[in-house]
Amino acid sequence: MITLSHGNGGEETHKLIKDIFYKYFKNEVLNQMGDSNILNEISRSIAITTDSFVVDPIFFNGGDIGKLSVCGTINDLAVSGALPKYITAAFIIEEGLEINVLEKVAKSMAKTAAESGVKIIAGDTKVVNRGKGDKLYINTTGIGILENAYISFNKIKPKDKIIVNGNIGEHGICILNEREYLNFQCDIKSDCAPLNKLCKDILSVSNNVRIMRDATRGGVATTLNEIVNTCKKSMLIYEEEIPVSQEVESFCHILGFDPLYVANEGKIVVIVDEKDAANVLKTMKNNPLGKNSKIIGEVIEDKSANLYLKTSLGGTKILPMLQGEILPRIC
Amino acid sequence: MITLSHGNGGEETHKLIKDIFYKYFKNEVLNQMGDSNILNEISRSIAITTDSFVVDPIFFNGGDIGKLSVCGTINDLAVSGALPKYITAAFIIEEGLEINVLEKVAKSMAKTAAESGVKIIAGDTKVVNRGKGDKLYINTTGIGILENAYISFNKIKPKDKIIVNGNIGEHGICILNEREYLNFQCDIKSDCAPLNKLCKDILSVSNNVRIMRDATRGGVATTLNEIVNTCKKSMLIYEEEIPVSQEVESFCHILGFDPLYVANEGKIVVIVDEKDAANVLKTMKNNPLGKNSKIIGEVIEDKSANLYLKTSLGGTKILPMLQGEILPRIC
Repeated sequence: MITLSHGNGGEETHKLIKDIFYKYFKNEVLNQMGDSNILNEISRSIAITTDSFVVDPIFFNGGDIGKLSVCGTINDLAVSGALPKYITAAFIIEEGLEINVLEKVAKSMAKTAAESGVKIIAGDTKVVNRGKGDKLYINTTGIGILENAYISFNKIKPKDKIIVNGNIGEHGICILNEREYLNFQCDIKSDCAPLNKLCKDILSVSNNVRIMRDATRGGVATTLNEIVNTCKKSMLIYEEEIPVSQEVESFCHILGFDPLYVANEGKIVVIVDEKDAANVLKTMKNNPLGKNSKIIGEVIEDKSANLYLKTSLGGTKILPMLQGEILPRIC
Repeated sequence: MITLSHGNGGEETHKLIKDIFYKYFKNEVLNQMGDSNILNEISRSIAITTDSFVVDPIFFNGGDIGKLSVCGTINDLAVSGALPKYITAAFIIEEGLEINVLEKVAKSMAKTAAESGVKIIAGDTKVVNRGKGDKLYINTTGIGILENAYISFNKIKPKDKIIVNGNIGEHGICILNEREYLNFQCDIKSDCAPLNKLCKDILSVSNNVRIMRDATRGGVATTLNEIVNTCKKSMLIYEEEIPVSQEVESFCHILGFDPLYVANEGKIVVIVDEKDAANVLKTMKNNPLGKNSKIIGEVIEDKSANLYLKTSLGGTKILPMLQGEILPRIC
């Protein structure tokens, strides 16, 4: 069990770090064990992102907080056109957590990082009193090397296509189902996955990608609203074109959720020039993490900077940014 | 008040980020507002460090969790010989925190960062349910540019001097006094401070600094033990030479603490060649954050890799690494 003394910076902390973190994460940078660790010169622009993960429960169908914390940061780098290289990992542990749970999470982080070619290069361990945390919170900060400085909100223009790389809403519904013990007879799995290879594939076939974003908290509708608000152009998406699995759709229908607002952890939206859209779509479909990719809409001539949905009944409505809270602590 | 919807990634989150974090932290990198933000090429080796801060209480005499989170990361970079340049800031907020408390913390972070020439370049906001956190936890990850690649454990040799930059134990005792409502009639202030200028001063007058470390959790005795364990040389420090204020000494005496194990947030230990020690000491004393600097001991000929204390009574004892927990959540 983790005790407060595992967070005191003394002997127990050092043993925990050695037995768990160095064991799974070891590499030549981390092994410096300095107050800070030194990276060799990176003679390129670098991309930086930080995220804390407070997901509840910490293990779920398709992943765990460790895998999520590595994928989330990798994806934030990858959508920016950067090659994810390094990640730091800082743990806030609630007193009483079993050490083998921590080890399972560390192992999962190491596996995901290795599969994605990323090194965990610095870390921190803090312990908080029982009842002042919830098992485990993880912060990951990522550094990537900018390979494709392609992103330009101001290149977004009418007729650009909007593509999503597969079925939406799976992460949020998976977490909800497991946390609330709804016990629906279903096997909805989180889509949690590292998307660096998919992003690289996309950028390798088109110089006209305007922007990519991962559609996490707030879902596809909120992510598209963020883009709309920044580029000051409107977008129209088609309800009929939005890929949703039968299970997620039924689940959302029963609970009154709109899958467009449910969190994903392995989905991106891509805005691309219409002339490259078919090629990008084909490339995405060839990647296992993009096999259900679909063009779901386009940028339109409209000065109001709104996101519109053409419903399956033929009407059109405005989709605002997510308001209020339906699914807390999904990441 | 912070609600769960401030962490949903939607409209409330965006408003909070805009009203608090962008307001105080704004700079050209942060303003990119990307999934990750892009830094210009750094044509030097870089230093990286990460730390989460879970201090209780979040405001204390001499500082607050915001100042602490910036200083802690700056100091980890500075002791490595790096010029602190960029910091990321990720917040885990407990539902129910007053927004003006968050604003006060953000303001304090911005002030400390500005004074130290550091930019806050990326951030994240998560909210956890009431009773699953404790007001506010902050992760900061820092990036520095390596200016002095001086550090070498294996250059440490007998007769090297050990210097500390002033009175020890003040941060830990300050936190303890305020948290436990001990109400001792005293004005012990945390020593929380950014030490980048002091570290730079030191490295500018000597090419024979072996290592610098900030003596935070576990205090000076634990920090020196870490060095001893890595360099496999022994060290001897003199109880009479260790700078401790009368107030901290009395406090420790009453409670049975040893100030050598109490946390600091503005103290470093410097190991330097004996021939440069006087000059380094003089330079340190000229910096306001080093005016009580003292040479407290030296590296000795002894294969056992121990830290020894020569007591004021003339005896010698081994000081081990901190074991157990006396002061949880002091940073």
